Amino acid sequence: MEFKDIVLQRYAAKKFHGKKVPDALINEILEMVRFAPSALNLQPWKIKVVTNEKVLERLRPAANDQEQVSTCSHLLVFCAETDYPALIRRLDALMKKHGVPDAHRMEVVGMAEKFSTLMTPEQRFAWSQAQTYLALGNALNGAKALGLDSCPMGGFNPAEFTRILAIPKHLVPVILCAVGYGADKPGPKIRFSREDILF
Amino acid sequence: MEFKDIVLQRYAAKKFHGKKVPDALINEILEMVRFAPSALNLQPWKIKVVTNEKVLERLRPAANDQEQVSTCSHLLVFCAETDYPALIRRLDALMKKHGVPDAHRMEVVGMAEKFSTLMTPEQRFAWSQAQTYLALGNALNGAKALGLDSCPMGGFNPAEFTRILAIPKHLVPVILCAVGYGADKPGPKIRFSREDILF
Repeated sequence: MEFKDIVLQRYAAKKFHGKKVPDALINEILEMVRFAPSALNLQPWKIKVVTNEKVLERLRPAANDQEQVSTCSHLLVFCAETDYPALIRRLDALMKKHGVPDAHRMEVVGMAEKFSTLMTPEQRFAWSQAQTYLALGNALNGAKALGLDSCPMGGFNPAEFTRILAIPKHLVPVILCAVGYGADKPGPKIRFSREDILF
Repeated sequence: MEFKDIVLQRYAAKKFHGKKVPDALINEILEMVRFAPSALNLQPWKIKVVTNEKVLERLRPAANDQEQVSTCSHLLVFCAETDYPALIRRLDALMKKHGVPDAHRMEVVGMAEKFSTLMTPEQRFAWSQAQTYLALGNALNGAKALGLDSCPMGGFNPAEFTRILAIPKHLVPVILCAVGYGADKPGPKIRFSREDILF
């Protein structure tokens, strides 16, 4: 499937058939998420995959009672990492493990320490959130590439999700990605014209 | 080209051959950007495409002197829209033009007004920035799908870019996407394991 067709055929499914997606396909989506780009390769995201129907039912009221939450097969809860010292240590260890030359590794770690220290906590969170949306984009396009449907959802209560899913404090749920087999039809794709988005 | 291969072959080019990319291909990338998803379909982004070599040379010092800025063919400057009242009016007009039923149109506009009013200016900016990263993701994957290379760059001075490119105040440059033909080779893709990104 051409990427352009993926982009044009992807839509935000408002309802899913209950049918479960094989875990192997979800794992493929997670691979595409894993290889998403991020500044300094920090990958400031973690994902909670929820499939338990009872848990999905409990989450639904915390997501404006949206039907996608309880009818999807897998709900990917994308969380932004806010603990930068720990994240930088993890990246350092990852680079060491992969044999990245010391000079380059130390340069990356130094830059990451410098730029994260210069930011306020709000800016760090916003930055992690933005990177996490790159990972989300790969999940949405990746699902369509595999013949699946998805729905990104920002309308939910992060505190409630944190409570119900016992999400550690340093991770903040920023966006949901429901995955399954769409039970609705995509509407027309209404977008600003090319002229409208250029300046 | 399979989406998975696009994801695995895309890399952040650190240097480009000077060769110009045909505008037709850049327009294809812009189409994929245009059809990116965004919450409430607000599409809170605008893009400045810079090709003039003299301008690129002037921008380079404002982007940590990174070689990609002056060796790329097209530099896409992704800006986040911060003027929500104007953006919501534009979306309203767009929906009217496309014949979206009044009830649905007014519901979307009402939600957009409500949620944008609840946010602080910082939160609105962060939200626009995150959505803009979804558009960026389509540009990066789209470039690779078309046989091109790209480099996302967050390390630049937005105020300097705003000054040099005379960017209107309501648009904030958040991320650059250099596009061209890579003159370097991709290194190994080092990422946290699947277990590391799940919890």
